[in-house]
Amino acid sequence: MKLKKIYDFLNEISPFELQEEWDNSGLLVGSYENEIEKVYLTLDLDEEVIENADENSLIIAHHPLIFKPLKNVIPTSFSTKLLIKLIQKNISFIAMHTNFDKTHLNRFVAEEILGLKGESFDFIYRAEVNKPFGEFAEEIRNRLNLTCLKTVKYHNFIKTVSLTTGAGMSLLPYVKSDLFLTGDIKYHEAMDAKVRGVSLIDIGHYESEKFFADIMGKELKDLAVEVIKSNSKNPFIYN
Amino acid sequence: MKLKKIYDFLNEISPFELQEEWDNSGLLVGSYENEIEKVYLTLDLDEEVIENADENSLIIAHHPLIFKPLKNVIPTSFSTKLLIKLIQKNISFIAMHTNFDKTHLNRFVAEEILGLKGESFDFIYRAEVNKPFGEFAEEIRNRLNLTCLKTVKYHNFIKTVSLTTGAGMSLLPYVKSDLFLTGDIKYHEAMDAKVRGVSLIDIGHYESEKFFADIMGKELKDLAVEVIKSNSKNPFIYN
Amino acid sequence: MKLKKIYDFLNEISPFELQEEWDNSGLLVGSYENEIEKVYLTLDLDEEVIENADENSLIIAHHPLIFKPLKNVIPTSFSTKLLIKLIQKNISFIAMHTNFDKTHLNRFVAEEILGLKGESFDFIYRAEVNKPFGEFAEEIRNRLNLTCLKTVKYHNFIKTVSLTTGAGMSLLPYVKSDLFLTGDIKYHEAMDAKVRGVSLIDIGHYESEKFFADIMGKELKDLAVEVIKSNSKNPFIYN
Amino acid sequence: MKLKKIYDFLNEISPFELQEEWDNSGLLVGSYENEIEKVYLTLDLDEEVIENADENSLIIAHHPLIFKPLKNVIPTSFSTKLLIKLIQKNISFIAMHTNFDKTHLNRFVAEEILGLKGESFDFIYRAEVNKPFGEFAEEIRNRLNLTCLKTVKYHNFIKTVSLTTGAGMSLLPYVKSDLFLTGDIKYHEAMDAKVRGVSLIDIGHYESEKFFADIMGKELKDLAVEVIKSNSKNPFIYN
Amino acid sequence: MKLKKIYDFLNEISPFELQEEWDNSGLLVGSYENEIEKVYLTLDLDEEVIENADENSLIIAHHPLIFKPLKNVIPTSFSTKLLIKLIQKNISFIAMHTNFDKTHLNRFVAEEILGLKGESFDFIYRAEVNKPFGEFAEEIRNRLNLTCLKTVKYHNFIKTVSLTTGAGMSLLPYVKSDLFLTGDIKYHEAMDAKVRGVSLIDIGHYESEKFFADIMGKELKDLAVEVIKSNSKNPFIYN
Amino acid sequence: MKLKKIYDFLNEISPFELQEEWDNSGLLVGSYENEIEKVYLTLDLDEEVIENADENSLIIAHHPLIFKPLKNVIPTSFSTKLLIKLIQKNISFIAMHTNFDKTHLNRFVAEEILGLKGESFDFIYRAEVNKPFGEFAEEIRNRLNLTCLKTVKYHNFIKTVSLTTGAGMSLLPYVKSDLFLTGDIKYHEAMDAKVRGVSLIDIGHYESEKFFADIMGKELKDLAVEVIKSNSKNPFIYN
Repeated sequence: MKLKKIYDFLNEISPFELQEEWDNSGLLVGSYENEIEKVYLTLDLDEEVIENADENSLIIAHHPLIFKPLKNVIPTSFSTKLLIKLIQKNISFIAMHTNFDKTHLNRFVAEEILGLKGESFDFIYRAEVNKPFGEFAEEIRNRLNLTCLKTVKYHNFIKTVSLTTGAGMSLLPYVKSDLFLTGDIKYHEAMDAKVRGVSLIDIGHYESEKFFADIMGKELKDLAVEVIKSNSKNPFIYN
Repeated sequence: MKLKKIYDFLNEISPFELQEEWDNSGLLVGSYENEIEKVYLTLDLDEEVIENADENSLIIAHHPLIFKPLKNVIPTSFSTKLLIKLIQKNISFIAMHTNFDKTHLNRFVAEEILGLKGESFDFIYRAEVNKPFGEFAEEIRNRLNLTCLKTVKYHNFIKTVSLTTGAGMSLLPYVKSDLFLTGDIKYHEAMDAKVRGVSLIDIGHYESEKFFADIMGKELKDLAVEVIKSNSKNPFIYN
Repeated sequence: MKLKKIYDFLNEISPFELQEEWDNSGLLVGSYENEIEKVYLTLDLDEEVIENADENSLIIAHHPLIFKPLKNVIPTSFSTKLLIKLIQKNISFIAMHTNFDKTHLNRFVAEEILGLKGESFDFIYRAEVNKPFGEFAEEIRNRLNLTCLKTVKYHNFIKTVSLTTGAGMSLLPYVKSDLFLTGDIKYHEAMDAKVRGVSLIDIGHYESEKFFADIMGKELKDLAVEVIKSNSKNPFIYN
Repeated sequence: MKLKKIYDFLNEISPFELQEEWDNSGLLVGSYENEIEKVYLTLDLDEEVIENADENSLIIAHHPLIFKPLKNVIPTSFSTKLLIKLIQKNISFIAMHTNFDKTHLNRFVAEEILGLKGESFDFIYRAEVNKPFGEFAEEIRNRLNLTCLKTVKYHNFIKTVSLTTGAGMSLLPYVKSDLFLTGDIKYHEAMDAKVRGVSLIDIGHYESEKFFADIMGKELKDLAVEVIKSNSKNPFIYN
Repeated sequence: MKLKKIYDFLNEISPFELQEEWDNSGLLVGSYENEIEKVYLTLDLDEEVIENADENSLIIAHHPLIFKPLKNVIPTSFSTKLLIKLIQKNISFIAMHTNFDKTHLNRFVAEEILGLKGESFDFIYRAEVNKPFGEFAEEIRNRLNLTCLKTVKYHNFIKTVSLTTGAGMSLLPYVKSDLFLTGDIKYHEAMDAKVRGVSLIDIGHYESEKFFADIMGKELKDLAVEVIKSNSKNPFIYN
Repeated sequence: MKLKKIYDFLNEISPFELQEEWDNSGLLVGSYENEIEKVYLTLDLDEEVIENADENSLIIAHHPLIFKPLKNVIPTSFSTKLLIKLIQKNISFIAMHTNFDKTHLNRFVAEEILGLKGESFDFIYRAEVNKPFGEFAEEIRNRLNLTCLKTVKYHNFIKTVSLTTGAGMSLLPYVKSDLFLTGDIKYHEAMDAKVRGVSLIDIGHYESEKFFADIMGKELKDLAVEVIKSNSKNPFIYN
């Protein structure tokens, strides 16, 4: 199957033009003319994912490999090391990032994983909770398998929750709930949330997005290509 | 004592011109002409710190209260809420941020708290370790009282370590050690470190800088003002 | 009465979104939640106006207090000195500037004060005159109480006049009349007008806008708050 | 005499490289190769000055004819109308603006016209006064022949004065005296000065710089060209 | 006839608002009020064209005389030397550049000179060819009188051709034909075309646009002015 | 031999820091750690050069492969098509561009090829000629093997000449000779030169730089690697 046909299918289920201005979703490596038999799905690209992928295949990942445009292709950075390996194995690479967050990922995690019932607005999913903070936090920990629970507690009782998978703290000013669930929360962002009266539970960047391959797998199941889920590993170990 | 005299003393032990271009260290609230009797020291400003401080006093904190210049002073953001309270109690405010990192904080944490013996270059402290990763990680956990240990492990044995207190991951390209200790490590930064072959231990932004008041207290002990350590609280709870 | 209600009323009679891009009209100090009993009206903020105002009141002025965003709040400049006093007395501050010029001020001065009959386009009011320059200039002097008449005379007879209160010389290229009335005219602007064949009468920045409190007072007369006209003083003395 | 020789002489007595970055002093019209017999001196260019000047002559003026670079030469603006006349009469034009302020004009007006004894720093001349405000203001009025005295009075007694000819209010933050003398003072600048505790006397842009031709005439008296003082008119009439 | 009337006629047959953003088509020298009896047409302005033109006439040229805005009018550059001569002879100057390319020039050269039959899209004219490269190249050489044929040959047989008069290589990415005809082709542009599989024939900037005066002459034939074709010379000699 | 050693040698004979700001000389593809046995030298990269090169080799070219930074590596442009081939054959790539112009290329062409005796200043080589234009032009044609001579003739007799290999017309304002030799001369640049009184001979971009491999070959002759001259082809055919 021509890569162009797969690209067009992806563009239909999650239009690339929905991506944010700073994002770089789309075909980043390879050619629309390539003949693809195998498609690998992964949250992120890492060395193991590439090693396990066949030559001439296609990898679809959540995060773009290239953000800052390249003035050379020397293996001194994260992206160029992997980029060179992709090109040498003639593996094509498509990123489905902020467009996919908006059309699929947020809603899936909120509803299928966390069992919430609400609505999705752009990057933010909002739902009612009506539970004590501690009880709800334990529930989140269990459903996402979080080893270490990192929270900012402002209210003892949570009426409504907002959720953004990945690293969503820049959206804090748009959060209208008692509690915000997102990953990669930094110290000053936590201070800010506290002053604004918003509680936080850090649901992990990896932990809240590791479902990417599963969701994408379901979408591609009728396509005439072999689809392999080949998730990257969480770089963090907690103990 | 005139505030100007205290400002000049601070400028001598840690010159404000050493601050980074994006920083906003210096006198942010109050007047050089104010007569100061009490000085409060805190890592950060929070509502409790201000409530406990006397009118007409001075607060010296690590982090600047204002980063983005203000077009109005309405209590809808973190900084303006606290700013208004400072002005209404006529409390002056000085930030000692990146200048103090370079002259005091990094070295103090490395040597006095972690017991390392090395050298400080700008924002990075480098030292020899020569211990297994696991053993050294436990040592760090104990010395900093970290509830939850979040690491990225690349080498089993650590020869040299680099340290930057606070959130130092933007300095990763300048790290020449097996292991980098810093706080607020995000997921993609962890991915990047792994590809570069650098292990990480997240030492916490608050946990690695909470010594600010202690260090500053020693420096000010001979000044003819009453000095009170009045640290802000860590917004995060771990369990 | 909640400040938010007063703000909404002002926004209705003179929408803030009409303001120019470089302007900073709107709520600059205080909170929408404040309970307001007294409203002071003034062309400009000066120390006397603040001293005479009650705590917890609201001041509505023509000119914004803050133009250049603030990196600190130290009493070394005009705006910050007054800003600090406002905050310490918990006085809120709203500026009605270029939006108000367009909706009220120009037309009021042209019709109610100068007795012209014409039309208002954005910042410029145009009307017929058909009088000798000298006669019309004397009329303007009397109606505005100008001690010293500063003019640029190109035509002996004035057919049409344009008017912009405050400092309007940047609008000269859009003036299609024999005579332009505005304040704060500078030397090179006068040279330019002469070459373009436009006569000028300097009607004073203060003298042409001192009606702000009167106009606003009429607009607010049915609002359930006490309204006090408390005009700032003209800094210039002429003799 | 070749224009280049006159240019070099001017550059010697008042180097063009001293001009401010936004200024456009130097040769603006004509050619360094032109043979010059007559030189006209004027504060500013106006139509009368050009009409009275001979063909192939040189005009030296204080203010540059061109500030904003030109995309066409159509007679719709002040500068292009005069520019076209200069070119059609083959008259060359040199501007001696901020370089001349720094080397000649400020000091001349302060010492020769106002009888002050002080020192010149860049654009500001500073001197001692030690007189009541009213007495000194009358003295200024008489020495400069000001019809209308426009002042801002903060102190009753003036110890020191600063002076900048032309329009100098942007220099206010650098003024360290009780009183600042300059021209073209606008309303908000007057408000600002009052808050800073600086009194003002508006000495007129034209009135404070009309000595340009006289000063330049003395400098050129030994040059082998005919020098004619041909001052432009003040566009303002006061009564 | 008033210049304004000629300008309006030109604007009707080839609207100036069609010009590219970087272009400077329109009236560049002279006044809309001028009374014009003679109009000279030329591809470009050069010294001979101006010398041969009567005073008070109008020159219409393809290329704008001014691109980079002028801070002075000294005869040290191409444009200012000619500009001064225009002004001194009171000759007005209108440029009809990218607007005219789009409305007239491309189509005329393609159809009237090269005998192609196709369609014009913005700056590019596209047509079928279906001839061997060598045969078509000779045909182009003869129709345009090219002394020296400079080509990049990728295909032996040309199915379709695109044409942009003047210097059109920046449009290469939009060329969808086997062959692109344009002028001023540079070495790296030729390399680029070869990699893209597009053949090139350099039809000369001057040689492909020298028809400007002819085309314009036909358009102006019913206007009540004397029209003289007075083409500039090709600066290049080939042998 | 490690690529790093070759890079260091190149940096010694022609320091990369001499390159212009807009240039991108240096290691663009491959790794400093690569073990290199064969080095190919070429003016430019084209498909043939890459096909003929061994895997794991190094290509040193004059022109950088990447100018505009890349947001993806898809084979739709000149540079990315070649870039992908380089990476797939694990061929490293170093560009020696404006640094090499300044240290080697200009002087070599002037002295060794054209037989001039003069001096090199940055990008321009200047020498005396003292010959009739026609005679000197024929000499240039013969020494560079130019099929088609494209000239702009202003003077009949040439006293001095300036030379810049490649495309040097942007340097015209710095040329102080009767004649300028450079390549890729465009029509408007020729017009400009004529007005400035500078004659031109277009010496071809390729034709004036094709000596790159020869010069570099001599420099590398003592290095312990096999050096192969493998020049790219001139894309232009002249007849």
